[in-house]
Amino acid sequence: MQEILPAKLKRIAVLTSGGDSPGLNACLRAVVRTALAEKVEIFGVRRGYDGLMADDFVQLDGHSVSGIINRGGTFLLTARSRNFESPAGLRKAARALARRKLEGLIVLGGEGSLRGASELAEKTSAAIMGIPKSIDNDVGGTDFSIGFDTALNTAVEVIDKIRDTATSHERLFFVEVMGRKRGFLALATALAGGAEAFLLPEIKSDLPLLCRKLEEGKRRGKISSIVVVAEGDEAGGAFEMARQIKKSMGYEVRVSVIGHQQRGGAPSAFDRILASQLGNAAVEALLRGERSKLAGIQKGGIVTVPLESAWKIEKPLDHGLIRLAEILSR
Amino acid sequence: MQEILPAKLKRIAVLTSGGDSPGLNACLRAVVRTALAEKVEIFGVRRGYDGLMADDFVQLDGHSVSGIINRGGTFLLTARSRNFESPAGLRKAARALARRKLEGLIVLGGEGSLRGASELAEKTSAAIMGIPKSIDNDVGGTDFSIGFDTALNTAVEVIDKIRDTATSHERLFFVEVMGRKRGFLALATALAGGAEAFLLPEIKSDLPLLCRKLEEGKRRGKISSIVVVAEGDEAGGAFEMARQIKKSMGYEVRVSVIGHQQRGGAPSAFDRILASQLGNAAVEALLRGERSKLAGIQKGGIVTVPLESAWKIEKPLDHGLIRLAEILSR
Amino acid sequence: MQEILPAKLKRIAVLTSGGDSPGLNACLRAVVRTALAEKVEIFGVRRGYDGLMADDFVQLDGHSVSGIINRGGTFLLTARSRNFESPAGLRKAARALARRKLEGLIVLGGEGSLRGASELAEKTSAAIMGIPKSIDNDVGGTDFSIGFDTALNTAVEVIDKIRDTATSHERLFFVEVMGRKRGFLALATALAGGAEAFLLPEIKSDLPLLCRKLEEGKRRGKISSIVVVAEGDEAGGAFEMARQIKKSMGYEVRVSVIGHQQRGGAPSAFDRILASQLGNAAVEALLRGERSKLAGIQKGGIVTVPLESAWKIEKPLDHGLIRLAEILSR
Amino acid sequence: MQEILPAKLKRIAVLTSGGDSPGLNACLRAVVRTALAEKVEIFGVRRGYDGLMADDFVQLDGHSVSGIINRGGTFLLTARSRNFESPAGLRKAARALARRKLEGLIVLGGEGSLRGASELAEKTSAAIMGIPKSIDNDVGGTDFSIGFDTALNTAVEVIDKIRDTATSHERLFFVEVMGRKRGFLALATALAGGAEAFLLPEIKSDLPLLCRKLEEGKRRGKISSIVVVAEGDEAGGAFEMARQIKKSMGYEVRVSVIGHQQRGGAPSAFDRILASQLGNAAVEALLRGERSKLAGIQKGGIVTVPLESAWKIEKPLDHGLIRLAEILSR
Repeated sequence: MQEILPAKLKRIAVLTSGGDSPGLNACLRAVVRTALAEKVEIFGVRRGYDGLMADDFVQLDGHSVSGIINRGGTFLLTARSRNFESPAGLRKAARALARRKLEGLIVLGGEGSLRGASELAEKTSAAIMGIPKSIDNDVGGTDFSIGFDTALNTAVEVIDKIRDTATSHERLFFVEVMGRKRGFLALATALAGGAEAFLLPEIKSDLPLLCRKLEEGKRRGKISSIVVVAEGDEAGGAFEMARQIKKSMGYEVRVSVIGHQQRGGAPSAFDRILASQLGNAAVEALLRGERSKLAGIQKGGIVTVPLESAWKIEKPLDHGLIRLAEILSR
Repeated sequence: MQEILPAKLKRIAVLTSGGDSPGLNACLRAVVRTALAEKVEIFGVRRGYDGLMADDFVQLDGHSVSGIINRGGTFLLTARSRNFESPAGLRKAARALARRKLEGLIVLGGEGSLRGASELAEKTSAAIMGIPKSIDNDVGGTDFSIGFDTALNTAVEVIDKIRDTATSHERLFFVEVMGRKRGFLALATALAGGAEAFLLPEIKSDLPLLCRKLEEGKRRGKISSIVVVAEGDEAGGAFEMARQIKKSMGYEVRVSVIGHQQRGGAPSAFDRILASQLGNAAVEALLRGERSKLAGIQKGGIVTVPLESAWKIEKPLDHGLIRLAEILSR
Repeated sequence: MQEILPAKLKRIAVLTSGGDSPGLNACLRAVVRTALAEKVEIFGVRRGYDGLMADDFVQLDGHSVSGIINRGGTFLLTARSRNFESPAGLRKAARALARRKLEGLIVLGGEGSLRGASELAEKTSAAIMGIPKSIDNDVGGTDFSIGFDTALNTAVEVIDKIRDTATSHERLFFVEVMGRKRGFLALATALAGGAEAFLLPEIKSDLPLLCRKLEEGKRRGKISSIVVVAEGDEAGGAFEMARQIKKSMGYEVRVSVIGHQQRGGAPSAFDRILASQLGNAAVEALLRGERSKLAGIQKGGIVTVPLESAWKIEKPLDHGLIRLAEILSR
Repeated sequence: MQEILPAKLKRIAVLTSGGDSPGLNACLRAVVRTALAEKVEIFGVRRGYDGLMADDFVQLDGHSVSGIINRGGTFLLTARSRNFESPAGLRKAARALARRKLEGLIVLGGEGSLRGASELAEKTSAAIMGIPKSIDNDVGGTDFSIGFDTALNTAVEVIDKIRDTATSHERLFFVEVMGRKRGFLALATALAGGAEAFLLPEIKSDLPLLCRKLEEGKRRGKISSIVVVAEGDEAGGAFEMARQIKKSMGYEVRVSVIGHQQRGGAPSAFDRILASQLGNAAVEALLRGERSKLAGIQKGGIVTVPLESAWKIEKPLDHGLIRLAEILSR
């Protein structure tokens, strides 16, 4: 009988940390509106952990989140904080929470930011909840992170446009999408974009094999080819790969790096709904007394899992999808 | 006892039936390329069951499906056939399959077309496989049908545009989305569009409650309101509802019916991937000897279930989503 | 003889009136930033003429117009005022301007709102400038009004989507675009959408001729047809026309009314640039001492013309475009 | 009295040359349909001048251009031919035209391709007409070239997305748009995208001035800045400029190169209409007996001008737009 029922929290805060993703505003709206519906005071921290250390809070009401569900970016601003994970940084942050009498903190972030949230959890009495956002979809413990679906649609629309020019000129294009360590975005982009091939960080790139594949496609009558490359591919990104192909095979290759547009834009319907569900779930979990958890989605259902799942559980690439992309790219 | 292990099929056909959905072409591409990869001859039937009864087949090769993954519509054409389910219609169709020596038929269709496929299965020795397509997402046995995600994004983009004008004019809008019998599309559109309220076929519309809700929103400072209405709402669609509201409350209401654009357009990345997976799965299931099955997606995984699931299993509305939409619409 | 050279204005106001158009925010941004660059105080009137009569002003600074160039709607809100053109309404408005010591007023509006501006000009010493906005492009004295290009692109994108489903089903569609009195939007939509026919308010609709045209197209192998109808067509809009066609010819016709989405959405590049040019030109014209003028674009150049051009000059339909649409629709 | 009335042409050809632009298909559709309406036989040359030298023709009928008005790319394929302008190349091309008894050739191309067309005109009796296409809008003799408006809208949509992330992170971005020698696209993108600054090939880049401008913006409260850079800027493109800024000022700068997506995608309504007008005008001019002309648009009207205008007339940058962009970027 050690556990008494947790007293319902009365004051919580929320912040966005790391690279921004489409859907953060939709998620903040859900956090704020759920909190207000539960009569919980809700504060926003500006500029992620930097703002937390600097005690930069703003109280949020219903108006604060009106008209933002369809906006890219994050109205709370975000940052990649460097000093936060030092002992001094964590102490500062914990003191800010205590000074404001905040009993809970919700962190919208990727793998690194969620790890930071976990370290903070050890220094503060406030309950910490994480919500996964990542256009790379590389956060563990959840099948999807906020922003992935939108970034994927952005990348696919770019591929569709490049296909027009690749076909008109009968050219080979290397198109680079985001994804430093993981190839989820590149694989899904290749599949949905109908790419002829893809290079992922998880799979050693086999240049001669790639070339044979492209040659075969040509023989079968393909008049253009698009190869999707994850920025973190071990062979070195789209420019390096194109250089090697040109050198070894004499092919002329065009390169296009989709870049930062993948982080912006109005979120897709999927991301708005996911963001709304996770924002709501994080607040409700706090109110049920959960702490140090990640609100995620698994097999279509909203779940909370231990916060460390975010970086400890390494999600496998879906080999069914890889096989499918290979069959369909012929 | 002729059949022990199923002999691998050598000749199959595919058709699209009923109202078109974005993603049909991506699915046909996957059916054709998987078949060719497995050395199976693949034929397309033009204009759905009408073409089947009329023996209108065309052999498909790799080129037939080049450059179509991003196209709306269906290159095989589709129709809502009226006479197909009569005994004469089914016999004609079965004879056409026999005459062409076709051992399998894949039907991309909604609830009604899949029911027709099941009736055909009883009259032919060809193995029948169904693939669910429905912008309403009302096919049983699968969490998602091809076209739903794209139609949802289309509807949400329209809502985003109408929000501009609703806000500038401080107006109340009723926006009607597709969905004759089920409100999945309307509910998801309301949630992702940040609508103030929604009216679904499954829930009896309570006009006075709706009005109180809109009044309350106004008091809290909302300067515009959007109510999403499923076309099949029992109160009678957006125009009728608007008429009643105007009559009983004196509100001025604008109405916008999103209409047929929901059926067209380049498919979303989600629909392209789902369509590719299901097209591939249907062919592979046929080759494994499965028959009278539906290829679907459940909890994120591709499955095959009995074909009659399509119309016998009634998918419940997600009450968590309804509750969420209500919390977030304040 | 007090006035010789006009003293440079020091305080001006701006309002948006009538139905909203994409590009109003971009234009307000240009008005505000040009005024501030010229050291002129600038005030926004909320809700058009209603706000002017109600003395609802807000002072604008550089921040007021940050981040709005790409937003649909108007941050000042708009209204279709009913009492403004009464003697009492005009007096109220003139008094509000005098009380605030405003020396100039810029009105962003359509034909009707600009006519109101002209009547106000007779009651006030403040200099009045008009800027044309109209998704119908029916304002005289300018080749293009703010919002037309965006609404046209929206309508064309809808047509593109409907074409997918029209072709897949081999159907005839009537698609209604905005345009109560003039057919500029319908004609341009038909041309850019590749429609098979169009019905404009300015041209008496010839039902038998239309039917012959559709029949001929069918014979030449067209498998779908799209007829663009201006909402103000004298034969009665898309639904009425479809009813007649069905009755007299037995055709099955689908109807889609594009509706209010045409007024919203991010403005096109053309509209953003035009809006920026006109907003800037209106302020600079005021500062040069011009009054009762309309800032417009003619033959690619920015001009100021007498304000009454807006409703007195009736722009002709471009018969070259009509002929072109007829040639290309075969 | 040297000139007798030209006999009406009976057989003409059309080709697309150089980098592709959105709107080429819409233009080809207009060329083909106008020719057919005039009972002129029309042939397409595949792969631009390469196909002309290789005698690669295909006869076109009404069906050839169905359903392409909204497609990016060119169904005739295009190429940047290297050997065409040699005496041997021109002779080959002239012989191909003669062998096919072609009396006219319409070339859709940019500055270089149109210059080639002019050289060909001296070697053949066939009448040559040019149609300007260029996403850079750098062809002389016409106010707009096919593809510019679409590329501009594409670039502006990318800027809108990058603005989300620039603002969320309070960052400085350099965004590179196409335009090797001319800055029309960069200037229009900067204006419509609301950029804080722009670097054009025609204007010597002043790094210290740029930095002062960005500093001033920060002081006035701007939290993000976007600098649009033309790829041909003499200071060396976005990456080089960013490197210099970082080196001299210590700013952290993100770079995004929009790249080849600017050449693809569904054409905007403006480009579809312009392309339709120019395609039609080129055929009609040929039939009137004009030769060695460019069909263009000037001050809103369709004109034909001497073909050499395309490269001999250097269009000035619009200094009004430069000034406007500077005023509005504050």
